[in-house]
Amino acid sequence: MIRPAETDQDAPGPSSTELAGRLHALLSGGSGRSLACAESCTGGLIAHRITAHAGSSDYFQGSAVTYSNAAKRTLLDVSQEILDRVGAVSDECAAAMAEGALAAFGADLAVSTTGIAGPGGATARKPVGLVYLAVAGAGGTTVVERRFSGDRAAVIEHATAVALSLLIDRLQPTTPVDPTASV
Amino acid sequence: MIRPAETDQDAPGPSSTELAGRLHALLSGGSGRSLACAESCTGGLIAHRITAHAGSSDYFQGSAVTYSNAAKRTLLDVSQEILDRVGAVSDECAAAMAEGALAAFGADLAVSTTGIAGPGGATARKPVGLVYLAVAGAGGTTVVERRFSGDRAAVIEHATAVALSLLIDRLQPTTPVDPTASV
Repeated sequence: MIRPAETDQDAPGPSSTELAGRLHALLSGGSGRSLACAESCTGGLIAHRITAHAGSSDYFQGSAVTYSNAAKRTLLDVSQEILDRVGAVSDECAAAMAEGALAAFGADLAVSTTGIAGPGGATARKPVGLVYLAVAGAGGTTVVERRFSGDRAAVIEHATAVALSLLIDRLQPTTPVDPTASV
Repeated sequence: MIRPAETDQDAPGPSSTELAGRLHALLSGGSGRSLACAESCTGGLIAHRITAHAGSSDYFQGSAVTYSNAAKRTLLDVSQEILDRVGAVSDECAAAMAEGALAAFGADLAVSTTGIAGPGGATARKPVGLVYLAVAGAGGTTVVERRFSGDRAAVIEHATAVALSLLIDRLQPTTPVDPTASV
């Protein structure tokens, strides 16, 4: 379920603003699919990028910006056991947040973020820039671990861009190339 | 409880970014007070402005970005009766959202926004730019009605700035001048 950790190479990718535009094109116009978010380290930026688009209310249900552990429990039903055992910045918490958003908002698809935007909050095992992101929906739950560099604003922007990319990937899966297929 | 409607004169006021800095100065450093939001038309921008500040996790519990009526009911306990009788863009809904955020996040102070960011969504009685904002806390609940001009981004920015101003006003009340007081 969890892809290997990837360190962000700071390759110049599309901005969160551009990616929200692509996502809007996929979901607007009567797609019939609905979307929700569960944001910790991105602090509402995913929701802000989505709702910048007129007509986003056709598919966007909302975002639970859960900065505290108590909010993660109350709004997203993240278990105290997960918070005690692996902490809020973990693959398991990201998965529980996305699945909690799916349930709380009654959405078809949900994305979550939990990480350390910095500059404070790092521990020996959890450095600044470490972010877990999850997407939950009919296709199951996928979690990715990323390490972003840069300052607080950069970590928030990068995490938002990756969250939007994960949603786009889930909505528009690339077809694997089958080398045995006849042409 | 509800102040008379004010039409925004587009007077150049402080930006939401500047106001979030003032709010951070009031709440950080062990103020012991906690904050939550319930955002509809601002779509997460209040939370984003607050969480741009390192250390905001000391006081910021989170924001319920509730774009759909279902989310307003589920996450903030807004009653179906209010939604049916006066609609989501109303003083009563704004008050219920702020009070719902106070309860859901267990915060000391909460602010809410609900309005029509446009360009669509207007009705004969509810034009684009109409926004209700509420602050709930130990001092009770206050609702204001505002009419903002400008495009979608401008309405979102103005509503975010007013929401942050309302929080600052509640935290730092101006002392009324008593003309009979001896000097």
